[in-house]
Amino acid sequence: MPSSSEYRLIYWPGIPGRGELIRLLFEEAGVAYTDTAKGPPDDAVAAVTSRLDDNTPPLLAPPILQHGSVTLSQTANILLYLAPRLGLAPAAGDDGMYHLNGIVLTLLDGFVNEVHETHHPVATMDYYESQKPEARRRSKAYRQERLPKFLAYAQELLTTGDWLYGGELSYADLVLFQGIDGSSYAFPKTMKKMKDSNRYNDVFRLYEAVKQRPRIKAYLDSRRRAPYSTGIWRHYPELEEEEEEEEE
Amino acid sequence: MPSSSEYRLIYWPGIPGRGELIRLLFEEAGVAYTDTAKGPPDDAVAAVTSRLDDNTPPLLAPPILQHGSVTLSQTANILLYLAPRLGLAPAAGDDGMYHLNGIVLTLLDGFVNEVHETHHPVATMDYYESQKPEARRRSKAYRQERLPKFLAYAQELLTTGDWLYGGELSYADLVLFQGIDGSSYAFPKTMKKMKDSNRYNDVFRLYEAVKQRPRIKAYLDSRRRAPYSTGIWRHYPELEEEEEEEEE
Repeated sequence: MPSSSEYRLIYWPGIPGRGELIRLLFEEAGVAYTDTAKGPPDDAVAAVTSRLDDNTPPLLAPPILQHGSVTLSQTANILLYLAPRLGLAPAAGDDGMYHLNGIVLTLLDGFVNEVHETHHPVATMDYYESQKPEARRRSKAYRQERLPKFLAYAQELLTTGDWLYGGELSYADLVLFQGIDGSSYAFPKTMKKMKDSNRYNDVFRLYEAVKQRPRIKAYLDSRRRAPYSTGIWRHYPELEEEEEEEEE
Repeated sequence: MPSSSEYRLIYWPGIPGRGELIRLLFEEAGVAYTDTAKGPPDDAVAAVTSRLDDNTPPLLAPPILQHGSVTLSQTANILLYLAPRLGLAPAAGDDGMYHLNGIVLTLLDGFVNEVHETHHPVATMDYYESQKPEARRRSKAYRQERLPKFLAYAQELLTTGDWLYGGELSYADLVLFQGIDGSSYAFPKTMKKMKDSNRYNDVFRLYEAVKQRPRIKAYLDSRRRAPYSTGIWRHYPELEEEEEEEEE
């Protein structure tokens, strides 16, 4: 049952980024929220930086959620807080909460955190252009070893049902949807190969099922959905070039 | 109040690793637990691999906690489950749970996950020796930019009290203790410099306060505490060499 306090998401403008994982819960639940990323870009940046400078409590990075007197950071944590309130997870403290949180933390590792490392493997604070050879090497390891491992994990979870946990849609499914969507933007040739392998059919079926849910579909078709650009999920064609790998 | 079911930690033998973050909660609480890492090494490895192969439910990596009918993975998630049961966090669902979880996820990023990246920046599944130049670059960024950022975050949390949250010891303090201890093993010269800067005095004070707690002290002095070697926290002197940096 949605709370009556307003939900306020504080996030960088102009990219889907980690904020997107949170937006999808609000959109699927049909719950109103304010999103600082959607105002004028300067104001949106100021909303993030002024909150980070505020230090009550100290928070290291967005996304940040404000709800009543609660201010939280860390994507997995914000999702943990929101999901039961939005009808997308069992009540806090139920064993199911921990099972879902374990799944979500694993999906975030595989389809968000490790994707970011592919283009920023050695200098997080520096430009991609300063670490291109390292990014190629990390991307190769990601495409060949890590991505299949995480896809196989999700596929394994789906052998017993249509959804990742508990027999019905949960926030974990929305996280997997966004992970697949972002990875498909970043590594389109690789993800096509993964899909065509038929090894992860239930993962791609779930992706399509989420995409077709009425509220998600309406959201994706709206201007509220920011296009991909230079956030977590970036498309650098050189990071999935295959030629030289075949020689190795 | 500890539950009557047995707690069973499944983790790799021979290293502190992520399992250590979980052990510290049991040790501080004085609660009995079995630890597969402590048997014969072959059996300990088999305990991990057989559990990962089991797939009920699918789990991608240790640490794994078994407690009654619950089987969980992901360090932050296991801590979230254990801490209220061991008297080291507010009850599940309290706002305090989310505040603590946000702090713990941030500390794990800064003092565990990013430390692992320093020696494995481009090929997670491969040897350190195959990625030494990249590791030097990542380590430099870690020591100069990331580590001070996370230390400043923890210091900021400690300006309002002796402990990270809620005015008393919580599991977040144990996580920070282990993070500082591990980072001090991996980067001794850097951490000495950080300590001597007097910018993070409350962090190092908390570190000492945790270390002197009777049950933690007894544990650290016991053979149950594995020495550091080749896990998350590794000491490669070349990863904190200063000379060439001063020329840049």
